[in-house]
Amino acid sequence: MPPITNARVLFNTRPDGYPVPGETTVYDTSETIDLETDPLNGGFIVKVLVLSIDPYFRGRMKVRKSPYGLIVSVSFQIPYRLQSKTDWFDGFGVGVVLRSENAQVAVGKHVYCAVMPHQQYVVIPELGEYVRLIERHPGLPWSIYVGALGMPGQTAFCGWKAYSEAKPGEVTFVTTGAGEHLSISLVEWLVIQLAKADGTKVIASAGSEEKVEFMKSIGADVAFNYKTTDTREVLEKEGPIDIFWDNVGGDILDAAIENAATFGRFIECGSISGYNTGQTPLKNFSLMVGKCLHMHGFLVWPLLPKYEEEFYATLARSSRVGSSSDFVFLPREYSEERWEGLEKVGDAILAVQNGTSKAKAVVIVAEE
Amino acid sequence: MPPITNARVLFNTRPDGYPVPGETTVYDTSETIDLETDPLNGGFIVKVLVLSIDPYFRGRMKVRKSPYGLIVSVSFQIPYRLQSKTDWFDGFGVGVVLRSENAQVAVGKHVYCAVMPHQQYVVIPELGEYVRLIERHPGLPWSIYVGALGMPGQTAFCGWKAYSEAKPGEVTFVTTGAGEHLSISLVEWLVIQLAKADGTKVIASAGSEEKVEFMKSIGADVAFNYKTTDTREVLEKEGPIDIFWDNVGGDILDAAIENAATFGRFIECGSISGYNTGQTPLKNFSLMVGKCLHMHGFLVWPLLPKYEEEFYATLARSSRVGSSSDFVFLPREYSEERWEGLEKVGDAILAVQNGTSKAKAVVIVAEE
Repeated sequence: MPPITNARVLFNTRPDGYPVPGETTVYDTSETIDLETDPLNGGFIVKVLVLSIDPYFRGRMKVRKSPYGLIVSVSFQIPYRLQSKTDWFDGFGVGVVLRSENAQVAVGKHVYCAVMPHQQYVVIPELGEYVRLIERHPGLPWSIYVGALGMPGQTAFCGWKAYSEAKPGEVTFVTTGAGEHLSISLVEWLVIQLAKADGTKVIASAGSEEKVEFMKSIGADVAFNYKTTDTREVLEKEGPIDIFWDNVGGDILDAAIENAATFGRFIECGSISGYNTGQTPLKNFSLMVGKCLHMHGFLVWPLLPKYEEEFYATLARSSRVGSSSDFVFLPREYSEERWEGLEKVGDAILAVQNGTSKAKAVVIVAEE
Repeated sequence: MPPITNARVLFNTRPDGYPVPGETTVYDTSETIDLETDPLNGGFIVKVLVLSIDPYFRGRMKVRKSPYGLIVSVSFQIPYRLQSKTDWFDGFGVGVVLRSENAQVAVGKHVYCAVMPHQQYVVIPELGEYVRLIERHPGLPWSIYVGALGMPGQTAFCGWKAYSEAKPGEVTFVTTGAGEHLSISLVEWLVIQLAKADGTKVIASAGSEEKVEFMKSIGADVAFNYKTTDTREVLEKEGPIDIFWDNVGGDILDAAIENAATFGRFIECGSISGYNTGQTPLKNFSLMVGKCLHMHGFLVWPLLPKYEEEFYATLARSSRVGSSSDFVFLPREYSEERWEGLEKVGDAILAVQNGTSKAKAVVIVAEE
């Protein structure tokens, strides 16, 4: 079999504002691969099936220079490299094994990778923390494993289980950043439901009436549009808050600190408001001393080994389409925005960043 | 026995900047008490022996009005009231019981109180969370029970034990606020020694060469004057830091976040820089997500029941003057600045706030 095209997405320029499809990222078809004969060097070759498009991409596109010369990413994980045309773009993805020199990784098995290159075929050297075998549960598409059953769902589940210390009757406040799933972030979508399942009163804020209605439909007790309603007024009336799930940062975080109950837990999951527009300084931080607040920044990976089994046991069961849900997880409210083909990655990234994406964004690279 | 003068300190005006003796607080001798016949209503009467003068007083003197009408203290505990001349000033203190109608509280026993009125004689209604019986260890003066063995020592010990998760070889960064003990805060004085005892490398910063030398003398591996040396340069060279004991807040906290190791623990003990000059907004807070930082605001009271026994067992033994110390606690480095008489409370408060106090400030109200 002759070599075939191995299309990929390259990271081309660091954007100043929103990423620009075709400029920030470039779809490239200049490489080829021979699936049967290209050397594996003990690794295995994977055909990429689905890729996740996530808000955190934006943080990895940026770097900033500290006054002392250190280049640091402003967000999770390492920045995307921008040194040559061979530097690929990557993210969460699932693929199927086509050929393997690794006894643990049989042909036909599936691989879940946190740094899956945005490329049709990938030679992966070995399994590891970020490259794991994954099994599909009956009735579920692979795409859900980069969504509700992937990093976003795991982020919500692990962060909530590890740090919320939720007790019935407490008050949870959840903020939503740029839209992703049915107009709110998939992470917060699950957090609202976990908070309800644990018996807390849920206050939720978002930036549009559509999002507010959606949050009410999945169980938020109090939902409001922070663009038209004063967050502080709501929190003073409905609070004080015991648990704050923070996806926004900035002034809303300041408001949450002001209205936190003693011994409140703040779960810092991101600050998407800062991704494109810079950091908003925090004014009330020192109030955390007198209020005995605990603030937990976290990434999902270090927590996953502890909660992985419980996560799949709880959510994969509930996710089966058509089954009656005995958990908060509501398949009927879960939807994906599917982009067909690697060449759509740039458009999908922009849609997630500017909030026009209304569902969990996935790129379907290939059918199995 | 006729009534005798019961001198006291009243809170007179809220200061704009530093507290002014005789104006912020007023020494008042207009009240009398009959020690033998004044009604106790089931309580007990205490002759106050020693009072602690602490940095946190400043926070309790301030209130601020939120945009929504709520009056909140900017610091620990409830603000000092300022409604009438009967509103006393209070703080940590030790007294001896002169008369009692409470079977648990025998005459001659001693009482440790977190809100001891700054007054010669006090009728206390009952024991409770903030009013507890206390026993003196051989060879130690009562004053040490409002210092190294009182709230400051307990704050350091409980905060460190609860939140540092210190492991040998890690790096601790301790900042010092306004001076108190031998030119640095007594809290930090103990934290430096606890951090060393747990095998961490200790970086410490203070605002004068004298403080820097003192911190080195009690074990800091790296000590520097933040007024003449760039904090970020030191942290980039000596860090990253795993544990940050923060008594300052503001820009140094920002620098600590920048130079924190993944999974770093920030123990937020106060932000004295904000007491007199207002809050410095925090710019780098959102970096805590990617670094998985954990920030713990705390007050000593909720933690004390868990650590009290270990605290006294460890420190009271080590504090005995002349004994060989098998703990980090070094009695020879511990000193008090004693102010004789209630009328000196105002001067002592100012000295603690403006940093001229060079030792743990105590007011000796009476000999036993």
